Amino acid sequence: MAAIKVVVHGALGKVGQEVVKAVCADPETKLVGAVDVKPAGDSMPLPDAPAGTIPISPDVSDILTRCPADVMVDFSVAKASLPAVRAAAKKKVNLVIGTTGFAADELDEIKQLAASNKVGIVVAPNFALGAVLMMHLAKIAARYMDYAEIIELHHHLKADAPSGTSLSTARAMAASRGKPFSHPADPVKPSSSRGEQVEGVSIHAVRLPGLMAHQEVILGAAGQTLIIRHDTINRECYMPGVLLAIKEVVKRPGFTYGLDTLLGL
Amino acid sequence: MAAIKVVVHGALGKVGQEVVKAVCADPETKLVGAVDVKPAGDSMPLPDAPAGTIPISPDVSDILTRCPADVMVDFSVAKASLPAVRAAAKKKVNLVIGTTGFAADELDEIKQLAASNKVGIVVAPNFALGAVLMMHLAKIAARYMDYAEIIELHHHLKADAPSGTSLSTARAMAASRGKPFSHPADPVKPSSSRGEQVEGVSIHAVRLPGLMAHQEVILGAAGQTLIIRHDTINRECYMPGVLLAIKEVVKRPGFTYGLDTLLGL
Amino acid sequence: MAAIKVVVHGALGKVGQEVVKAVCADPETKLVGAVDVKPAGDSMPLPDAPAGTIPISPDVSDILTRCPADVMVDFSVAKASLPAVRAAAKKKVNLVIGTTGFAADELDEIKQLAASNKVGIVVAPNFALGAVLMMHLAKIAARYMDYAEIIELHHHLKADAPSGTSLSTARAMAASRGKPFSHPADPVKPSSSRGEQVEGVSIHAVRLPGLMAHQEVILGAAGQTLIIRHDTINRECYMPGVLLAIKEVVKRPGFTYGLDTLLGL
Amino acid sequence: MAAIKVVVHGALGKVGQEVVKAVCADPETKLVGAVDVKPAGDSMPLPDAPAGTIPISPDVSDILTRCPADVMVDFSVAKASLPAVRAAAKKKVNLVIGTTGFAADELDEIKQLAASNKVGIVVAPNFALGAVLMMHLAKIAARYMDYAEIIELHHHLKADAPSGTSLSTARAMAASRGKPFSHPADPVKPSSSRGEQVEGVSIHAVRLPGLMAHQEVILGAAGQTLIIRHDTINRECYMPGVLLAIKEVVKRPGFTYGLDTLLGL
Repeated sequence: MAAIKVVVHGALGKVGQEVVKAVCADPETKLVGAVDVKPAGDSMPLPDAPAGTIPISPDVSDILTRCPADVMVDFSVAKASLPAVRAAAKKKVNLVIGTTGFAADELDEIKQLAASNKVGIVVAPNFALGAVLMMHLAKIAARYMDYAEIIELHHHLKADAPSGTSLSTARAMAASRGKPFSHPADPVKPSSSRGEQVEGVSIHAVRLPGLMAHQEVILGAAGQTLIIRHDTINRECYMPGVLLAIKEVVKRPGFTYGLDTLLGL
Repeated sequence: MAAIKVVVHGALGKVGQEVVKAVCADPETKLVGAVDVKPAGDSMPLPDAPAGTIPISPDVSDILTRCPADVMVDFSVAKASLPAVRAAAKKKVNLVIGTTGFAADELDEIKQLAASNKVGIVVAPNFALGAVLMMHLAKIAARYMDYAEIIELHHHLKADAPSGTSLSTARAMAASRGKPFSHPADPVKPSSSRGEQVEGVSIHAVRLPGLMAHQEVILGAAGQTLIIRHDTINRECYMPGVLLAIKEVVKRPGFTYGLDTLLGL
Repeated sequence: MAAIKVVVHGALGKVGQEVVKAVCADPETKLVGAVDVKPAGDSMPLPDAPAGTIPISPDVSDILTRCPADVMVDFSVAKASLPAVRAAAKKKVNLVIGTTGFAADELDEIKQLAASNKVGIVVAPNFALGAVLMMHLAKIAARYMDYAEIIELHHHLKADAPSGTSLSTARAMAASRGKPFSHPADPVKPSSSRGEQVEGVSIHAVRLPGLMAHQEVILGAAGQTLIIRHDTINRECYMPGVLLAIKEVVKRPGFTYGLDTLLGL
Repeated sequence: MAAIKVVVHGALGKVGQEVVKAVCADPETKLVGAVDVKPAGDSMPLPDAPAGTIPISPDVSDILTRCPADVMVDFSVAKASLPAVRAAAKKKVNLVIGTTGFAADELDEIKQLAASNKVGIVVAPNFALGAVLMMHLAKIAARYMDYAEIIELHHHLKADAPSGTSLSTARAMAASRGKPFSHPADPVKPSSSRGEQVEGVSIHAVRLPGLMAHQEVILGAAGQTLIIRHDTINRECYMPGVLLAIKEVVKRPGFTYGLDTLLGL
């Protein structure tokens, strides 16, 4: 089987660079071109392959014309993403989109682009395979155990607390059981040590240098606890999800939202 | 709704005592009688209820005649269990059986007893809700991540290693993905530090005083790990499963094997 | 060397029963008598030794007269403890005291009883060896790393939060470094998920059934974290400290406060 | 106080690049020059400071002449390191050396260079602050608890198992208590799941993608366990130790071996 030909939009960004590496390292995919706002020249070197280069340009249509591709992977910003998505869909190139921040009407347009151009488009707000699995497993366990707390741990420069993922997890767990979790009585003297309560779940946010992104869901029942924990150490964590999406989108015309849907979870 | 009337067979055993406490504490269940080999008298006190006692006897038929029950819970030994199960089924009493060590033909007989007497019988080798969930969740995650190791931790007097549960987990995970896990290359100099390999999964057994029964399944992919961990601190850990089985068996005629089946996992 | 002869005051209490078992199991100690408020008779059976019994009585002086002892271990309540301590000291019996709740003047009296009677008396508010070690190690690490948070986890019926041990740990760690810890900026939108702050340390309290008593101190620095964690599964956790105190007190006349002092920490 | 002027030898290597960043980010240190085998030009840009550059050259003496420095940090290879160390010592520049692989006579020479040139030289085989602390704390705990196991976890491409750090830790812990640890009886059926035994300590090596470098020391006693764990997510983990060494070496003439000595552990 021929390797899937891939163009990366946002190839010089932090996640984009990882996509470039991952696509080059996987024998089932082949990097054929790159797009970014301000490339240093008209080609970029391939990682771990001194002799090779691929064309790079700020112009999506130009690259897609010169480098015929099966899939374009897009990790950029919503504003830059939408015109690129329109251009790719028009050229019948399937899309894997990890850019976040789309408005509802923008997502609707992307959905229609998939239908009208008969291409596959996967949009996922989180490509971290393990995080998506963690949430899925926590939703299953939530049906059988009545108490739960979440500890999320991030580097000390993260601006918000608790994390969006921890809030989504607590809500999804409660929805899965059809009711909030049981919550222990408040302490005699109120204390923020008991965390922020969401649907009966106490959420605790740890912020320390030396941490990256971690979340632990602890469920309790008589005599036992069950822990589901996801740890990430760097942006490579998105790559298994991105590669999976590349391989699936070529077989799956139309619009797919969320890595969980793609995984059949 | 009237409380479910329960007799406990093996009521003075280590797990039996916990069943007595749990049935008394749950408002949906009511302890009406107890059976054990050598009771100290013909009644036993109810936990946390100084005034109350229930009849106890070494004779199953005697207790079931004097104390009409909906369910008999059995945590004893295979040899003592079988005659008790026959007696209970004959009296149309549903059964929740946690006794282990049945031979295949004995299990077959129990199955037939359920059918011929039109009663519900639940047999489960492991009533620890969290352990059953851990294995179920590990089987799901196994389909999406290619590397896994298991660390099981028990008190230092446990005679075998690795634990039966860890072996079952590794095999069930491999079966779920339809192939063994990928396994890292052996170290330059062979070492038992890399554990016992089962289906590509390295199993590590920790034995220390201060531990009870714990198992951690770690799955790895690029940039991330996913951990599913079950910790038990005492025999109460079986009670959520036992109470669930009591409440389910009265609505579920016929034979059911395994807490996972009962949970719909 | 002859075994150290021990009397247990509060022998039928929850911790007292564990002391009875531990003293009987250790070849260097020998249980010779027991005191408790309402014994069922005038002797009590020894654990795991069907043939043996020891005298028990509500009267301390009576037992200490009939059963000459080297050490009396006291796990009772402050009100009952003090008269017993006076009686034992007068009879030149060394003391290991785990009872809590003494007023300052009561502790002073105990101190004087040790001096005036020339006996050894060890008073410790916490005999959990691992907890005392955890706090000691956290104080050392606190000198070298500038960020720390504490997660303490207890069963869901614990009335207070955060735990006294977590507060003591945070304060002792700050004292050890001579200044509060650095604390990350507050989140954009304030949230109790960030815990209760003590000396720059965020303390998080988890409350779930299936937990016993656990504490994790996490220190962070660039690119790394250091964790010191103590887990207890039952009241046996006090026994290594109690046995150590019994063996030390006979060699250490005078008053000693705290297991850490006894350990030379 | 004037910032400490620093030259980095091996500035383009993986650790060297982190040293460059760390020295620039710390207000108490100032990067003044860099040395590496094949620089791209005769200056290199400073991180996060578009306007600034510093001189870089393959010639140590040249850089040290043009850029007077208080300290030279060396993360290179033993062969390249020694001549650079000689050149720096001769110019009265203090040295922080993280290069590994020196032969005994080479270390002796470095020691003499410190004495004869009256400069401070710190050599440390491991600059990861948390790892050094972990080992120090484990040695203390080893005196009080009789059972211990070590779990070390690394990425799946690590060639050896168990890790050198885990072996050193087990040996140092046994030395600290003056005897091997107690070891549980072997399992009925021998199994490598019980790990590699060193001084009574079972060492388990986990190898998975998604891990970086982690080690957990678990000590056990009746009813409790104590865990000391170190996690690293990237090479930044060496920087707190390197910065500390830079600040100490200018106040500490002569030879110092090991970060633990420098920390006063």
